[in-house]
Amino acid sequence: MGAHSVAVLGATGVVGQEILSILEERRFPVRTLKALASPRSVGKTVRFNGETVPVEAAGPTSFKGVELVLASAGASVTRELAPAIAASGAVLVDNSSAFRMRSDVPLVVPEVNGDAIAGHRGIIANPNCVAILLCVAVAPLHRAACVERIVVSTYQAASGAGLAAMRELEHQTRAVLAGEAPAPAALPHPIAFNVFSHNAAIGPDGYNGEETKVMNETRKILGAPELRITATCVRVPVLRAHTESINLALRDPLGEARAREILSASPGIEVVDDRERNTFPMPLAATGKDLVYVGRIRDDPSQPEGRGLQLFVCGDQLRKGAALNAIQIAERL
Amino acid sequence: MGAHSVAVLGATGVVGQEILSILEERRFPVRTLKALASPRSVGKTVRFNGETVPVEAAGPTSFKGVELVLASAGASVTRELAPAIAASGAVLVDNSSAFRMRSDVPLVVPEVNGDAIAGHRGIIANPNCVAILLCVAVAPLHRAACVERIVVSTYQAASGAGLAAMRELEHQTRAVLAGEAPAPAALPHPIAFNVFSHNAAIGPDGYNGEETKVMNETRKILGAPELRITATCVRVPVLRAHTESINLALRDPLGEARAREILSASPGIEVVDDRERNTFPMPLAATGKDLVYVGRIRDDPSQPEGRGLQLFVCGDQLRKGAALNAIQIAERL
Repeated sequence: MGAHSVAVLGATGVVGQEILSILEERRFPVRTLKALASPRSVGKTVRFNGETVPVEAAGPTSFKGVELVLASAGASVTRELAPAIAASGAVLVDNSSAFRMRSDVPLVVPEVNGDAIAGHRGIIANPNCVAILLCVAVAPLHRAACVERIVVSTYQAASGAGLAAMRELEHQTRAVLAGEAPAPAALPHPIAFNVFSHNAAIGPDGYNGEETKVMNETRKILGAPELRITATCVRVPVLRAHTESINLALRDPLGEARAREILSASPGIEVVDDRERNTFPMPLAATGKDLVYVGRIRDDPSQPEGRGLQLFVCGDQLRKGAALNAIQIAERL
Repeated sequence: MGAHSVAVLGATGVVGQEILSILEERRFPVRTLKALASPRSVGKTVRFNGETVPVEAAGPTSFKGVELVLASAGASVTRELAPAIAASGAVLVDNSSAFRMRSDVPLVVPEVNGDAIAGHRGIIANPNCVAILLCVAVAPLHRAACVERIVVSTYQAASGAGLAAMRELEHQTRAVLAGEAPAPAALPHPIAFNVFSHNAAIGPDGYNGEETKVMNETRKILGAPELRITATCVRVPVLRAHTESINLALRDPLGEARAREILSASPGIEVVDDRERNTFPMPLAATGKDLVYVGRIRDDPSQPEGRGLQLFVCGDQLRKGAALNAIQIAERL
């Protein structure tokens, strides 16, 4: 594979930083690297492969000669820049929600539907972080026994709301322990020693934007438009790995023993399911790791025998939930 | 109502302390108060109604003349002392799991099945904290539309594991923020900035002891032996209020608007469901409060119309989840 001219859009953000470090780690063949961000980041630099790269303001003229854009900016910024990226001939792997549900844009988790990449027309969307972890864990079971319904409740880290939210968790926690009660800023509610319903706006059906993404994107990634799914997305005082409690209804009987075998043999998964030592996936243990950790694999007694399963899943929100998945897509291109 | 001779068993524990403060707050008619605990607490004192009460070692002779025992000791201690309590003629309201599933012991949440108190034979059991909050929220909907299946995932505070776990959450968090990595002691896994599957031992069915309590006790409290229920119990870094994400399948169609009306008119509940301001129940807001807070009330699109509901529920684990519920039982006696 020849080396490529790569632009990282949103290079100063928490996902952008993770993209740069994973490109290095995985020795992605980069010939030239452009670090793009909003105008207010101009003057900053980023480090890449031992060099200092100045941050440039992203604009319509930023993409000349670029072959690959790894974007982790907001949906509206990416939507605005997409025509310029297309005109430059670069392929856009986009972390935002801008294009995820467009029928001509593949929405890809490489372990699950990597084949969809081949059909791209210049844009490949990287799914929502909760949907990525969910699909890595559920896809192998779906193939084996056809998942008919999913009930998922999440335990989401501050990182999903960006660097400011991660810092707020730390600063606020320190302040609370010192007897203060600081007002929340990056997040709408106190996060230190608290839990709250995900802060995305609520739609007319009562589901918040995060939940709607999880439900719609999971159907698209699994190629299962009829899949019934309900999600409750919740923030917890954790820095950067998400956890999910997943209840599955299966069309075909499977059973927990077979489910464990299937999951143990599936790509991107490590089964952590030690009942004797009470050791299961934990966000702290998943932090900085590339795999999706799956445990608490058990039959659900509230469903017909073999037709219900429970899972407890963790994965690093910034790596597999965002930057790593995007780079795995780029590697397959 | 005349004043009573009351013994608090486990008076130095976190629930015992809460019992003493709620007895005061609600002006429960106490004539004499005995503070009982394990021998290692002898020498300590507790405060009650402005007086200093010495802690006595709980033993078979502790209950002479006592009319009411409010117990929050371990199940084995309470099981051992129960014959002496019965012999003294006192009524035992027990927070432990020792007698909860015995067919001759009422398991009571006053708002739900307060009538069951009348049938007691000397022991009334106070349910598991998760089951109490769940039943307060679900019972009115069950009466209206018959709940057939419950899928619940919890976000449980450190308080459920006692005072040492609460202190560990604080100390460990402070240490982590200072760059240290202290070994967990009161809890089996790190709790600062982490989430883990509840530490109760795992049974042969893969469910942990906490989950099994929630499932069995909910059926008993609701008087619904056929109810299908599955629980995933999880610890989060929160001090003293539990949160639950609850998915319901209903036999009869209901719909979220009617569900909200019913919940708003039900005892022990405050509906907090402001979609516009993204304000829903939060453990921090429920701390120190007596009510069960219910929000995120919405139809579940993964079930037939009107037959599925989602709820997000919070309540103070030490008050309604333990001490307050026990005293509400005693008040009804």
